[in-house]
This record gives sequence, C-alpha cells and structure tokens, in this order.
Amino acid sequence: MVFPTASDWSGLAERSVVVSFIDLNLRGAGQVIFQDNPLTGLLFLLAVIWGAGAAGDPGVAIGAVVALLVANLTAMLLAADEGALRQGLFGFNGLLVGAAMPTFLGGTPTMWVLLVLGAAVSTVVMLAVTAVMRTVGAPALTAPFVLTSWLLLVAAYSLANLAIAGMGPPALAQAPIPAPSPLAGAMPLMQAWLKGPAQIFLIDDALSGVLVIIGLAVSSLRAAGGALLGSAVALGVSLALGADLAAIAGGLYGFSPVLTAVALGCVFYPPSARAALYTLLATILTVIAQAALAAATAPLGIPPLTAAFVLVTWLFLLARPKL
Amino acid sequence: MVFPTASDWSGLAERSVVVSFIDLNLRGAGQVIFQDNPLTGLLFLLAVIWGAGAAGDPGVAIGAVVALLVANLTAMLLAADEGALRQGLFGFNGLLVGAAMPTFLGGTPTMWVLLVLGAAVSTVVMLAVTAVMRTVGAPALTAPFVLTSWLLLVAAYSLANLAIAGMGPPALAQAPIPAPSPLAGAMPLMQAWLKGPAQIFLIDDALSGVLVIIGLAVSSLRAAGGALLGSAVALGVSLALGADLAAIAGGLYGFSPVLTAVALGCVFYPPSARAALYTLLATILTVIAQAALAAATAPLGIPPLTAAFVLVTWLFLLARPKL
Amino acid sequence: MVFPTASDWSGLAERSVVVSFIDLNLRGAGQVIFQDNPLTGLLFLLAVIWGAGAAGDPGVAIGAVVALLVANLTAMLLAADEGALRQGLFGFNGLLVGAAMPTFLGGTPTMWVLLVLGAAVSTVVMLAVTAVMRTVGAPALTAPFVLTSWLLLVAAYSLANLAIAGMGPPALAQAPIPAPSPLAGAMPLMQAWLKGPAQIFLIDDALSGVLVIIGLAVSSLRAAGGALLGSAVALGVSLALGADLAAIAGGLYGFSPVLTAVALGCVFYPPSARAALYTLLATILTVIAQAALAAATAPLGIPPLTAAFVLVTWLFLLARPKL
Repeated sequence: MVFPTASDWSGLAERSVVVSFIDLNLRGAGQVIFQDNPLTGLLFLLAVIWGAGAAGDPGVAIGAVVALLVANLTAMLLAADEGALRQGLFGFNGLLVGAAMPTFLGGTPTMWVLLVLGAAVSTVVMLAVTAVMRTVGAPALTAPFVLTSWLLLVAAYSLANLAIAGMGPPALAQAPIPAPSPLAGAMPLMQAWLKGPAQIFLIDDALSGVLVIIGLAVSSLRAAGGALLGSAVALGVSLALGADLAAIAGGLYGFSPVLTAVALGCVFYPPSARAALYTLLATILTVIAQAALAAATAPLGIPPLTAAFVLVTWLFLLARPKL
Repeated sequence: MVFPTASDWSGLAERSVVVSFIDLNLRGAGQVIFQDNPLTGLLFLLAVIWGAGAAGDPGVAIGAVVALLVANLTAMLLAADEGALRQGLFGFNGLLVGAAMPTFLGGTPTMWVLLVLGAAVSTVVMLAVTAVMRTVGAPALTAPFVLTSWLLLVAAYSLANLAIAGMGPPALAQAPIPAPSPLAGAMPLMQAWLKGPAQIFLIDDALSGVLVIIGLAVSSLRAAGGALLGSAVALGVSLALGADLAAIAGGLYGFSPVLTAVALGCVFYPPSARAALYTLLATILTVIAQAALAAATAPLGIPPLTAAFVLVTWLFLLARPKL
Repeated sequence: MVFPTASDWSGLAERSVVVSFIDLNLRGAGQVIFQDNPLTGLLFLLAVIWGAGAAGDPGVAIGAVVALLVANLTAMLLAADEGALRQGLFGFNGLLVGAAMPTFLGGTPTMWVLLVLGAAVSTVVMLAVTAVMRTVGAPALTAPFVLTSWLLLVAAYSLANLAIAGMGPPALAQAPIPAPSPLAGAMPLMQAWLKGPAQIFLIDDALSGVLVIIGLAVSSLRAAGGALLGSAVALGVSLALGADLAAIAGGLYGFSPVLTAVALGCVFYPPSARAALYTLLATILTVIAQAALAAATAPLGIPPLTAAFVLVTWLFLLARPKL
C-alpha cells in the first residue's frame, strides 16, 4: 500500500473541483492555528470530532463542519480573494462560530438556522475586519469569530426561541476568595496542559489536545513546541495568580495564550532570543487578559472566547518592535 | 394657485441666505434616511411633530427641531465642508440627539441645556467619525448620534439634575421565557410594520410611519419600497426568533433593519439579485444585532438606539463584496 | 551658591548616560500633562511623593517611580524611536499605571509583580496605540495607561492573589437622588479646585495640586492657567449638573477636564477666541463624559481613570476644525 504524498494531494486539488474544495476547507481548519496545511486541518477536525463525541455532544462537531463549509461557500459567492480563499483564510472563523453555537446554546432548530447564518456572516466580518486592519498592517486573527459569536450569543438573552445552555447567567463579578494554595496532586496538571490547545476549538478533552499538537507538528514542529510551551506558561501563570482552579483544570486559561505564543513566537516574528522574550511577555499578558475578559463579560453572561488572544496579539503586532 | 416646483425652491435657496438655511436644515432631516431632499425632510419633520403631538409629548418634536438647527449652526461656526453642509450631512445626527433626549430624560432645564450642548457636540463627533471612517472608505452613518446620545444618557445616572424617564433601570439580562407562539390576531402586524420607519425618529406612531414612507417616496420610490420591505423582514424575523412581543408591536425591532435595508439596498449598492440577497442577509442580521444590543445595553440602563444598523451596515460596507 | 541652569542640565544630559536617563525619566513625568521639561517632571514627582506620604500610602509614589523607570527601560529594549524616548513619551503612561495599581489594589507581592509587568506592557501599548492613531493623525494621549490599567484592574476580580482595595464592588447604576442644592460653605471649593490637577496623578491632596500647577508654570504659564481654568470650569459644571458632592470635593470631576483644557487650549491649537470657545465646549463635555464613564464602569467595578479626557480630546482633535 502506498500512502498519497503531499504533492499527490496538491496535484489532485489542482485538477479536481471537488478535491480543491475539500482542500480549502481542510486548510481552513488548519488556519485556526495559522497552518496552511490540509493534513493539519484534518487532524484538527478529528480532534473536534473525538472531543465532541467523547463529551456526548456531537452537535459541536457537526456545527463546526457545517459552518466551515458555509463560510467558504459564502466567500465564493462574494467573490472573495482567490488566494486567501485557497489558503483557508475564510474558513477558520466560520468553523469556530459553528463550534461555539452548540457549546453555549441549546440545539433548537432556531440555533441551527442561526449557526448557518452566523457562518455566512463570519465571512462578511472577516472581509470587513481584514479591510480595517490592513490600514494598520495587522491581520484579522480570530476577531471575526469573536465578534460574530458574541453578537449571536448575547442576542439569545432577547430571543425566546434560542435556549441558553453552557453560559451565563449574567452576573456581577465579585472579589475572589483567596484559596489555599492548590496541592500539585489536586490539580490534574497534565490534563490542564493538554486541554489548552483543545479549548481553542471549544473542546474540553486532553486527547483532543494531543491530536491538535500532532496536527501542528506535521506542519511545523516549531508551532507544536510553541503551543506546548504557551500552554505550560499559561498553566504556571494562572496558578501563580490564583485563577479559578476549575477553569484552569479545564484548559480555559490555556487556549488564548497558546494562540498568542504560536502567533508571535512562530508565525509573525523570526526566531531570536529577544523575540522569545517578547512572546513570553505577551503570553503572560494573555493569561491576565483572559482573567480580565472573564470578569468583564460576566455581566453580559457571555464567554470571552479568544478575545484575550486577539487583543494582546494585536497590541504586540501593532507595536512593531525591532526584533 | 400654483405650487412651487423643486427648481423654484432651489433658485430661492441660492438667492436667499434664509431660504438656504431652511433648505439645508430640511435636507438634514431628510438625511436621517439618506435623502438629500428638502421636501422629504419636511415630511419627516411632520412625522415627528404628528407623532410627538399624538403622544402628548411635544418636547420630542421641539428637541428635534432645536437640535437640528444647533447642529447645523455649529457646523457653520466650525467652517465645516460647504458641500456636505448644504446636503444636510451635519443635521441628521443632531436631530436624532434632540429627539432622543426628551424621549429618555425628563424635561428639566438641565436636560434642555444638555440637549443644545449635545446637538453642538454631535457636529464635532460627525466631523471626527467622518475623518476616521474615511481612512477605511465608509460613511459615519448615525454613529455620531449613537455615541453622543449614549454619553449624555448614561451620564444621567451620575447627575441628579437630570431625570431618568423612559429608559432603564439598569438590569442584568435574564434567559428569556419561551412564550406560546403569538396568534396573528393578537399582534397588530400592520401597526408594527408601519411603526418601524417611525421609530427611526423615536416616534411610536403608525401614521408617522406612513408620513416617513411618503417622505421617502417623494425622493425615491426605491427607498420607500426598501423601507417597507425592510420593516416587513424585521417583523417576520423578530417574530420567528421569539423576540419580545411588546417591543415588536412598538416597532422597536423594525427601525434599525429599515435603515440597513435602505442603506445597502437603495443607496450604496446598485440594484441586482446578488445585492438584494446581500441586503437581505444584512437586514436579518440587524434584527439579531438589535436583540444583542438590547441585552448588552441593559446593564447600563440605556437604549440601543440605531447601533445595530451602524454596526451591521459598517460590516457589510467594509467587506466590499464585488456586487 | 550658583543654581544650575537649564542649559547646564541639558549639557550634562548630553555628556552623561546616567544624567541622560534621569533626564528622560523626569521628562516622562512632565509629559503626563504634555510638558517636555525635566524640572516640571521633578515637581510632578514631588507632588506624587508628597500626596502619597500625606495619605500614608507611600506605595503609590514607589509604584509611580518604579513603573516610570520600567516603562522607559522597556522602550530602550524595544529600540523605540530615540527622539520620542528622549522627550519622555514612553514614560508617562507607565508612571500612571504605577500610581493606579497601588491605589486600587492591595499591596500583595503579586500586585507588585503585575505593576512591573504592566509598566513594561504600557510601552508596548503606547507603541501600538501610536501606530494606530497615526493613521488618523492624532496622538495616543493617556489611552495606553487607561487600557493597560483597566486590563490589570478588572483581572483582579478573577485572580485571588490580587486584593481589591479602593475600587468596586461591581454594581448596577441607580437613578441619582436629587439632592438639595449644596451650600457653598459645605463644599470645600478651593480644595476641590486644587485637587483636580492632583488627581491626574491619582493623588487626593490640594497641596499636591499646587505643586502640579507650579510644575506646569515653570514650563508654561499658559498651561498652568489652562489647568486652573479647566479645573474651575469642571467644578462649576459638575456642581450645576448635580454630580456626587463627595466625588467633586475629592477632585474626581476635575482631573480629566484639566487635561482636556491643557491639551486643546494650550498644546494642540494656537490661542484664539474661537479656539478658547472650542476648548470650553470640550471641557464641559469632559465633565459629562466623566459622569457617563463613572456610571458605565460601575458594573465592572473599575474606575474611569482618564478615559473621559482621552475620548473627548480625540473627538475634538479628529474633528479638525479650522481654528
């Protein structure tokens, strides 16, 4: 038996419209963590499917795949830039909207209609955010996912045919109660560390995190290492600052710092000691921004999603340090 | 008896400073829904005056007219662009600030002072937002109205000499209670449909809505049709999603989608099947954005105003689809 | 005995690395109110040290000085623009972050670590905000201070190793109770007037306010006059609008209007009657914006900081009136 190689696949994608469409959707999945690689995308999708299945919530995986397809079809209808389309840049925000909707809303027919609509809208928002950020020379990152999802999720508090599930209720933040230092034994450190990369896809599963890391590794060992380091830094910093232990254990303090670490450490700056230090500062700040956004979104009853990553990475890109 | 024609009026406006000033104020009223037409503006003002009178609240009409004049005078003092001034582009945000203040605050002397100040400020904000949005090639829309009014209205919670009336109290959103499907008979569909266009001017009156539609029709039949279609889409979508029935009946789910429909369907894109579909998607999203902003502004105790229209229309303009 | 003159000092700063570093840090303190002058900066620091000492809270002064140094060292490490660095433009936001952290958070070791981190981050945010605002031709003002501090302060509600002190608890705003007109005798007008300039540095002390004014005067008599006038306008307007008397007495309605008055009246526009009127309108609006932001930040339990100044001054600069 002969495995198809990457160049076999590329050749197929050029000759066949169907394979080309599959290819750009797989790349779209890969672009969630900056990888223009269909095999990476396939492994990311497997991570989502495994995690959703293990949690008994297949809707998250179905939503992610449906929304990925809809977002890319919308980009084709809008005659979006061909090159960006082929690199999967119109898919990743849709995929995330599609994973978020069934995570935070009940599976009513209205939710599924809005999931499809939200996926289409994510492409419009991607085009708009890209146009705005181009004027300052920065990419859209996952801002279209965050904006679109926040709009749909907070609307659920006004719309009776959507069911709130897995978020809220809206509440004012309270001064946290200093907890006794957690025993290392009581905190499943390894689980928390691996769930960070999985939670990028809203999946609460360590094995999914391993699949995400493998997906990164087949495309870029450096990105896989950056993700593991970013998750480790997030784990240490969130424990040291006294963040909520259940949130840490679920990987909720890890996913945004992982994205920041990969973006700044492995994508946008060439490797150097100063770039590494700069990325470390940004990764630590992303943990604090995650804590900030958790408190700031509480009165609205919505999740922070990847807003901490977007905010910090934008700041650290726009600063344009001479690295 | 001979009615003056449009060209008679234009001639008068060129020869007389007074007529010219009246003309640009009427056009300012017309620009609330994108019409550079003094007769349209006159009909819009009549809609406001009728609606305010019918509700026994003449302050809204007086506020609207006073603020319209102040906003335009401020633009003259600041030597703003002559062409934009003559087209009424410095009037419409002021008019809306002047209608909003007496709608949401009690008629204290302090309110009237701040109404005049807010009208002047709306011109400064219009200049600023226009300068910023020019860098990305989009117009200010009613963002200056929203920003200025939010600032003044939320300040009322800190200022004892302003009286809260018609908004608030600040409250956390709650998961909505699924209501039994409304009987068509119980919902005054025709009223809700016509109140949508009226609520653009913060008027809760179906006959005012008819005057607004007539005002649009004398300038552009297409815009009048777009407004009626937009209001109908908003009515259907908000009912289908289970939005609050009292809000729907009052036209509160209609005004922002009407503006989106006219903006995208009749002003910024040439007519085509694809542009119509694109506008439909934006109009539906504006209903959802209205629901989202109603929930998101609840903890501050302020109304969403036309923020849903501004947000969605900006996104759908900035995306620059090839239509 | 011969006092060193300004040119002696400049000469020293050019020859000695140490004096040069001291010089740019003093200028950094001066830039809090737009003065590129080391003596002004020294007097501002004395105002902070005096005020913090008088309140028995030396942490505020220590935090301000440490953060000033860290912010400037970070700018050197990031190879930021040499000219801007020498003018102190990378110091003032750090200084303010360093004063804010011990004002609103308890003096835990974690707070001090985050203060140093926040000071470094303030330089990154300064670079980023400067890059973004350059596209519309406006300066960063104290936006980097506000953004960085809000992020750190609201995060404290999620982080048990930070202690909330001097802000919050998060609360929904309530309609204010109309109070009987305050007797002039009951309100320490002179104190409130002088505390305005001091509260720019988060210092609640009238003598510190005098030191701030003297610091301005040695650099620019016009700026000193503008600050005193701005504080007087803020006092009158906030009393007339019925703002909270304790907040007025503490100078909390004065600091942002002082900054607006100096910025628009003494820095960005040449003197003229129209510029004075324009500045007056902006200063009055800043009082209202302060009231608005006090209500708007209440549900998050964080202070408005200088956001009212930043918002209003940006609007009045971006409007680009022909003055």
